Formats: sequence, C-alpha cells, structure tokens
Amino acid sequence: MAPTRVTMVAGTGLDGGAAGEPPAAWGIERIVAVRGEPLPAASHLRRIEGAEFAAETQSAWTLQGVRSHDRYLERGEKDRLIAIQQDLDRPSSTLAALIPMRKSAAWWAMTQDERRAVFEPRSRHIAIGSDYLPAVARRLYHCRDLGGPFDFLTWFEFDAAAAGAFDELLGRLRETEEWRYVDREVEVRLQRRR
Amino acid sequence: MAPTRVTMVAGTGLDGGAAGEPPAAWGIERIVAVRGEPLPAASHLRRIEGAEFAAETQSAWTLQGVRSHDRYLERGEKDRLIAIQQDLDRPSSTLAALIPMRKSAAWWAMTQDERRAVFEPRSRHIAIGSDYLPAVARRLYHCRDLGGPFDFLTWFEFDAAAAGAFDELLGRLRETEEWRYVDREVEVRLQRRR
Repeated sequence: MAPTRVTMVAGTGLDGGAAGEPPAAWGIERIVAVRGEPLPAASHLRRIEGAEFAAETQSAWTLQGVRSHDRYLERGEKDRLIAIQQDLDRPSSTLAALIPMRKSAAWWAMTQDERRAVFEPRSRHIAIGSDYLPAVARRLYHCRDLGGPFDFLTWFEFDAAAAGAFDELLGRLRETEEWRYVDREVEVRLQRRR
Repeated sequence: MAPTRVTMVAGTGLDGGAAGEPPAAWGIERIVAVRGEPLPAASHLRRIEGAEFAAETQSAWTLQGVRSHDRYLERGEKDRLIAIQQDLDRPSSTLAALIPMRKSAAWWAMTQDERRAVFEPRSRHIAIGSDYLPAVARRLYHCRDLGGPFDFLTWFEFDAAAAGAFDELLGRLRETEEWRYVDREVEVRLQRRR
C-alpha cells in the first residue's frame, strides 16, 4: 500500500471555500525564510491528506509530501515516542507551524550510519523533540524523491500556552550539527480559523 | 538537487524509434512473475535517465523511479563496494535484468534498526551481492514514495559468461529472511539490441 499523500495548498485573500471546498482551516500569521529562498506571501493554508495528491487549484503555492516510513528511528526510541506523543487535531491545538526544509548534497552523500550519527548521537534530534512532548504534536512528510523544492515538510500543532516552548524547540534544533546540513528552511506560522 | 529520475518504457512489436526517438536498446527475452501480479508482455525496453521523467508515450507499461540516496549502506561497506564494483554500460554487458519489487506492510512498519538487522546481519544482502562483483553491475531506483505499483526497480548488467552466476545470485537472495518481506517481484530479462 502506497504511503498517504499530503498536499499543502496556500492561498491569498478571503477564502470561503470556493467550488464546494470547505474553507481553509488555518490562517497564515507569518512566513519567515530561515535559510535560503522564501515562499510567496499567502493568507491561509489547507493541509489535505489522502490516497492521492489533491487536484491542482489556484494557489499562492502548493507543496506535496508523503507520510512514508521511519528513516532514523530505532525501536526503543519509537516505543518511547508512541507512549508519550499525541496526535494531530486536538481541539486545544489552535496554533500550528509548517516548516519545509531541504538538506545539502553533503547530507545526502553520507551513508546511513553517518547520517544517523549526526542525527541522534551528535545532534540529539529525537531527545530534544521529546522534551516538548506531548505539548507539541508533529507529523513528518517526505518529499525528496518527489523532486519538489524541499526534502521534508514538517508540521506541528500546539496550544497557545506552548508557543514559547515551541520557539525554544526550534532554537535548540537549529543550533545542532544536523542543522549545518540544512540549506533551505522556511517557517510558516498558522492559527486555526474555525 | 533532486535525485536523477528513471523511466522504464516497455513496448511491443517492431521498434524503429518512432517520432525521432532512438530504437530501444534492450530486447525483452522473457518476463517472469516471481511473486504476485505479473507485468504485461512486451518485446523491448528503454531505460531513460534524466532530470525529469520521460514524457508519456504509447507503451505496454511504464515504471518510474529515482536514484536517491543510500538507505542501509554503512561507510565501510560503501567504500568496499566502490573499490570493486563497475558501472553500467560496459560494452561487454550484452545481458540485463530489470527486477521491480515491492515489500510488505510489515517491512515498512519496522524501524530503521529492525530493517537493517534483517537486511545485512541476518540476510547478508550486501555480502551476497559482493560475491558477484564486478561481473554484475547494478543500479537501484527507489519508487515507494512515488506511489506506483513497486517500491524499487533494480537493474543489472552482465556479460554472457556471467549469466549463470547472476541466476545463482538471485537464488541466494530469494532464500534470505529479507525476501520473506517481498510481496511482489517480477523478473524482466533483456538482451542488448545494438
């Protein structure tokens, strides 16, 4: 069975859900180019999961990804995450962030053991993220093999009380050795509209 | 930079290279459904690599993949492979095989360390493959994230003297624990036409 697909569709102006679509669930508060090229301005965003990519619509920009399988997690780590993490779509999660990222050719030229050594033993990516569970719910979409402008789309949801902690999480990750291999990163901050 | 894309285009009947295309380089000798659904009969095959997928043409079937990055190789293993393997397109390589494969949901539900443990420590995938280097040249294309009918397209080239060894290689791999997770496998055997 093929991995679940996601289409992130950002639009501009008022969005009442044209052509039978529901209105966009998320308003865009700001778009920050952390590293590399920015994304065009937009006012709202739909995150659409399904067996196929959502059909092309008029949009400011569209990004595609797949949920796919774990690339670095080990069994013990995964079991610990499953025990404490919470799923998306909690009613209390009024804030969200979409952070599309691309890693450098140097990252992708490494072998699996080399990437894993940077990812966890040296950068503590999983350990740092775990410090913000269950407050921050997240989902990772892969897109490198799809050939788009990013390698990953990362999605986070949390409540207003966790907004400061989420910023701290981003700050800690961006100081790691792993982030030296990030050559494009855009931060899209969102607020639930309904 | 996005991974190189491959399009495998299989056709039927005479193929003189219609519409400005060169004639297909490979004739199909036989197509064997090793496990699961077969592929339709065809008489010739083009393997087209490029920055984009090749445009849709009339074909018996078309498969797409990307060269992507190493998923299981460790540095020491990769260095040893690089030292002995040879590239595709040797003039002596008059025979080839395209083996598209799909692995089960149980495979993809495993974490990275679990898949690696099956792949090399228990199944000796790399070690078995190395026994047939440099006689058998190969290239792996990934396609699971693309959502097609297979997870991988494996491509092999060798000369007539290595045909028996290549069959032995396939037989050894198919007896491994890793192959219990293969739920579809088709063997397309080819002969160079020019």
